Amino acid sequence: MASKTALHPLSIGIDIGGTGTKFGIVDRDGNLLFSDEISTKKHADVHSFIDELYNALSTLIEKAGGIGRMKGIGVGAPNGNYYTGTIEYAPNLPWKGIIPLAKLIEDKFKLPVTLTNDANAAAIGEMMYGAAKGMKDFIMITLGTGVGSGIVANGQLIYGHDGFAGEVGHTIIIPDGRIHPGTGKKGSLESYASATGVKYTTLELLETTDTPSVLRDIPKEEIDSKKVYEAAIQGDGLARHVYEYTGRILGLAMANCVMFSSPEAIILFGGLTKAGDLILKPTREHMEANLIQVFQNKVKLLISHLRESDAAILGASALVWE
Amino acid sequence: MASKTALHPLSIGIDIGGTGTKFGIVDRDGNLLFSDEISTKKHADVHSFIDELYNALSTLIEKAGGIGRMKGIGVGAPNGNYYTGTIEYAPNLPWKGIIPLAKLIEDKFKLPVTLTNDANAAAIGEMMYGAAKGMKDFIMITLGTGVGSGIVANGQLIYGHDGFAGEVGHTIIIPDGRIHPGTGKKGSLESYASATGVKYTTLELLETTDTPSVLRDIPKEEIDSKKVYEAAIQGDGLARHVYEYTGRILGLAMANCVMFSSPEAIILFGGLTKAGDLILKPTREHMEANLIQVFQNKVKLLISHLRESDAAILGASALVWE
Repeated sequence: MASKTALHPLSIGIDIGGTGTKFGIVDRDGNLLFSDEISTKKHADVHSFIDELYNALSTLIEKAGGIGRMKGIGVGAPNGNYYTGTIEYAPNLPWKGIIPLAKLIEDKFKLPVTLTNDANAAAIGEMMYGAAKGMKDFIMITLGTGVGSGIVANGQLIYGHDGFAGEVGHTIIIPDGRIHPGTGKKGSLESYASATGVKYTTLELLETTDTPSVLRDIPKEEIDSKKVYEAAIQGDGLARHVYEYTGRILGLAMANCVMFSSPEAIILFGGLTKAGDLILKPTREHMEANLIQVFQNKVKLLISHLRESDAAILGASALVWE
Repeated sequence: MASKTALHPLSIGIDIGGTGTKFGIVDRDGNLLFSDEISTKKHADVHSFIDELYNALSTLIEKAGGIGRMKGIGVGAPNGNYYTGTIEYAPNLPWKGIIPLAKLIEDKFKLPVTLTNDANAAAIGEMMYGAAKGMKDFIMITLGTGVGSGIVANGQLIYGHDGFAGEVGHTIIIPDGRIHPGTGKKGSLESYASATGVKYTTLELLETTDTPSVLRDIPKEEIDSKKVYEAAIQGDGLARHVYEYTGRILGLAMANCVMFSSPEAIILFGGLTKAGDLILKPTREHMEANLIQVFQNKVKLLISHLRESDAAILGASALVWE
């Protein structure tokens, strides 16, 4: 006779990012039982991506008791549309135009698929299992290769009229500012407060100032947000200035978010948050400085409690239970 | 025997603006039966304001069949808090700090009072009786002395964690831009896209350019948005440039709103919209120019169908029926 546990259905969560795709098998209580990762970037063709995803996930599915236990698949992806199951014009993904991703995965796995924005999925994960448990109004901002966001108001995720709400990363913070290579727009939050943004800010400061820095000893093409972080924690002035500058812009963007939907908390996650107070301190300071009085000293600034990779997988998997 | 109509309860809607306060008596179908207006500005003391409001409203209440027919009072006011019934630190009102407005009105009229942000009230009016009928996701932006906003998502008004959501007018659009005399913040939407903002843009252009303009014949202290409008419709180049500039900033702010909550429509109302295409054309153009592809050519830009003064009164009165 099968044990009670064996009868419990499981769900599959997939988090598609600009660089890598993380996925896992999750139980109803939010335990991530098995997980793995493949590259997104290297697949210029979405079909070859689906093939590799299928192979990698099949291994996990077998470990977890076979396809029969899987209730469905939840997917978080940049520009993912909850209503149509498509990814549309995602600037940070290799696949251009409108991609019927939910349909492609459904056909391959023969399981029902629900898709949403990757940051929306992360927000659902935080609300069900993380720092936003019990909150009715919060904003999740993911600081990775790009900047994503998921907005919860009145206890509900805001999908918007067309399913694409929550693109705070593309809001314009510095009019006529730095150009975004993916969108062609100038001065968006993502052009500054992402791993890529940190890299460009560093290259700009190296070029336009004489500030001494250990980063000057590194070939320019090798500079990335990780090297800037390592320099900053060693006290490098220029690297610290990069975080100060990034926090200034992120703080301003967050103030605008607060004045829009007045959340109880803003929850940050992703690579950039590893810099801790180096980034959080200026971010909080500039957020407060740009808020009108009625919003000041009210909004919690939280770092996700969940493991970075887990929140989005958990959130995506939670779509299956809804 | 009383007629059926005489038995129907009525509601009172009050719209408090920085300059004037409009109020009226409304039936359940949204007919504004009686209305009037008093000055907000001239009352440095909130109690003298309430006294004048009481006297003026009492006349209307008598006309409408007496206090017995009134079910309650709905109030829209800048920085009005739905949860607490207070007005808190409203930069454009004469009363500073935290004002327990709902309580003050309740004590005076002996009727139940519901309070919200003036622009939230206008949004409810549009949703119940106006251009947003049937919409589940839209943003109302009021362009008056200040800039207000009401955000509806998933068919619900977003009040936010503390009741203050929807302060798009105070979002920062031009970092380190023009200072707002009420908030001390630099570069907020309201510093540009309000009647006051139009005045300051005009004064700046008169001072910093040599562009010929009929406005140069007017003493500076007499220039206001009405005179700029009159000059613009007569083809005055400088006045038209003022609208172009204002539309550029309003369009950018609206693009940011769209990328946040992805509404079906943005509904504009207030004095500035009387300029028609002079302001709408650049606004739409710059909104579209700042949107990433997925949002382009989707969002309806609508002017309120309701009479300017009516929407906020109707919206405020609708709070009574909820």
